[in-house]
Amino acid sequence: MAIAKKIKSSLSNSSMIRKMFEEGIAMKKKHGADKVYDFSLGNPNVEPPENFKKELKKIAEEIIHNKHGYMPNAGYPETRQAVAAKINKTHGLKLDSDHIVMSCGAGGALNVIFKSLLDPKDEVIVPVPFFMEYNAYIGNYDGVLRKVNTKEDFSLDVAAIAAALNDKTKAVLINSPNNPTGKVYSEKNIADLARMLVKKSKELKKAIYLVSDEPYSEIVYDKVKVPNIFSFYKNSIIAYSYSKTLSLPGERIGYIAVNPEIEDADELVSALIMCTRICGFVNAPAMMQRVVARLQNTKVEVNVYKRKRDMLCSGLKKAGYRFEKPQGAFYLFVKSPIPDDMKFVKKLLEKNILVVPGSAFACPGYFRIAYCVDDATIINSMQGFAEAITECG
Amino acid sequence: MAIAKKIKSSLSNSSMIRKMFEEGIAMKKKHGADKVYDFSLGNPNVEPPENFKKELKKIAEEIIHNKHGYMPNAGYPETRQAVAAKINKTHGLKLDSDHIVMSCGAGGALNVIFKSLLDPKDEVIVPVPFFMEYNAYIGNYDGVLRKVNTKEDFSLDVAAIAAALNDKTKAVLINSPNNPTGKVYSEKNIADLARMLVKKSKELKKAIYLVSDEPYSEIVYDKVKVPNIFSFYKNSIIAYSYSKTLSLPGERIGYIAVNPEIEDADELVSALIMCTRICGFVNAPAMMQRVVARLQNTKVEVNVYKRKRDMLCSGLKKAGYRFEKPQGAFYLFVKSPIPDDMKFVKKLLEKNILVVPGSAFACPGYFRIAYCVDDATIINSMQGFAEAITECG
Repeated sequence: MAIAKKIKSSLSNSSMIRKMFEEGIAMKKKHGADKVYDFSLGNPNVEPPENFKKELKKIAEEIIHNKHGYMPNAGYPETRQAVAAKINKTHGLKLDSDHIVMSCGAGGALNVIFKSLLDPKDEVIVPVPFFMEYNAYIGNYDGVLRKVNTKEDFSLDVAAIAAALNDKTKAVLINSPNNPTGKVYSEKNIADLARMLVKKSKELKKAIYLVSDEPYSEIVYDKVKVPNIFSFYKNSIIAYSYSKTLSLPGERIGYIAVNPEIEDADELVSALIMCTRICGFVNAPAMMQRVVARLQNTKVEVNVYKRKRDMLCSGLKKAGYRFEKPQGAFYLFVKSPIPDDMKFVKKLLEKNILVVPGSAFACPGYFRIAYCVDDATIINSMQGFAEAITECG
Repeated sequence: MAIAKKIKSSLSNSSMIRKMFEEGIAMKKKHGADKVYDFSLGNPNVEPPENFKKELKKIAEEIIHNKHGYMPNAGYPETRQAVAAKINKTHGLKLDSDHIVMSCGAGGALNVIFKSLLDPKDEVIVPVPFFMEYNAYIGNYDGVLRKVNTKEDFSLDVAAIAAALNDKTKAVLINSPNNPTGKVYSEKNIADLARMLVKKSKELKKAIYLVSDEPYSEIVYDKVKVPNIFSFYKNSIIAYSYSKTLSLPGERIGYIAVNPEIEDADELVSALIMCTRICGFVNAPAMMQRVVARLQNTKVEVNVYKRKRDMLCSGLKKAGYRFEKPQGAFYLFVKSPIPDDMKFVKKLLEKNILVVPGSAFACPGYFRIAYCVDDATIINSMQGFAEAITECG
């Protein structure tokens, strides 16, 4: 056999999200793009901000020595400095550039973090539902993903996390605003989690890391605030991406931020830098590093997503669907009208509607709508959504 | 302890090349850039071609739908098509876009390849000397790097490779033009290797993959040709990067090319695409994919490197150094005048000359000069080189 055994067995249950995305491309070719309602992938349809385009053009024209060459694996010092300054200003913290390692998006960041932290069989606790790539990112380093349920409203169930903690636990991985639920964990929820982790770390006599995956932290509605975990818990690490903030997920640019108070900070940062190198990322793409250094205060027009959310929520509510209204990100996690979410997703497919089943987030009985799409897609899909729930009723 | 045990132990013997590079930055700050002769890193000093700059500006200005968004994990179909067409035209082959997976440079490509191929304890044979990151790239997937010596002139010792092959061998990894020697394996050398691999695959009743790391394939001198391994051996895979061809190593853009004749081609390509996703690369940077699609026939001015090579070789020869004249890449691998290469590298450091010891390429008794530097660096270093050999003589 040619390929690795583990890879062969993963191939068959490869990402449902990506399968839907590629199915969508095929369907659009067949039926015409305006006849297919593709809510499968978190591929922002909102254009990057004007500022981004302006800076990109400027940088493309500027004469800079060694503009596209290697830099230190952690990234350009000035980019790391700009990122640290932005975090400090927003959250009243005291990071310096040494606490930032530029990454190839949040996916790259999480791989570098887990490569740095995990010994074989170390456990990472992840609240359900979650982005299924976490399975791979943790498994890549022979770690074990341990699922823990969230509460009915998708907030963290701190007692359940406490019960799952044990000698093998290396980290808790949270994602807020959440994919797929759009939930933003409240300050109180994070404070409770932090308090419990402090207590449990003492009991277990080991550091338990809180890793927060935050690509959506700038995409929040209704004046909701995303609490910064650094203010609550010292052994904490943030994985961030500009994919959503600036609408450039194809460019693979993000960062890892390390709490300045973290245990053995120097050693951890050295590990993160080395793992950036040895995992084959080498460094975050040079030109995009230059761009984001200048765009720390720029983001896409979040109100556009808010309008889409409101349109979608009101339409689906009218049709009889049940869901928690998302506070951030651009996902809506809807209760499937029938228990079998795979079956319902197929029903929606008959209406040319592509969504992702909750099973793809370890949470059967739901489906995810990525509403980072044209308004027309939302409006024109409503009839199909209404028909599907009626036909299953 | 915070970080993973394996990572902790690697931290102390982290890349000597990168250490030298960072040492160089520090020394330049102290002594002034023109007083430090930094030959440590393969960071091309030759500017990207004018065509690259032109296309980059054009793409920055063009209005393209979803310009910076996600695309299929393998890359843009038109980029993959352009790459396949270029390979076909150059080597008279018949690849189509399905045989190409765009990657985050050659480092990303090799990680994706080994993640796809290696089961734990699978062996990869690597001729010495070699780029030490191979240790990490193979070890990342619990593979075992098995060293095999090359001949006196650094050509492949096919008999030695044959002797090292066994039931655990999954692949042979070659790198031509070679880092650190600048050697280009001849057509005969590759044909001999291929013939032996065919025979041994039959004996061992298993596919043995020939993986060729070729970031320097466009940087060759004196009308030397780099044979395309696809014409010689069916179970072959190429890892390529535009880092050197277009002078943009910081941008992380390259590709994996799979021989259309390879066993289970579809399954292997699916694995490569999936591993691109799950390793956290997700896709090669979008904008650079668009750029390279248009620059398949563009490369840096290779004569500039040739001139530097000749200048360096003639100077060092005069000073009494011994080496094989490189046929490609921009490295010169010089015999250390004393057996202890680490000691000699320190001697050169006293002269403000930074080179990398052969030990960093599993080949003690040599040192590597990366001559992708200003002419002045070469010229002004000559006195130091001469003094160092005299003082050690």
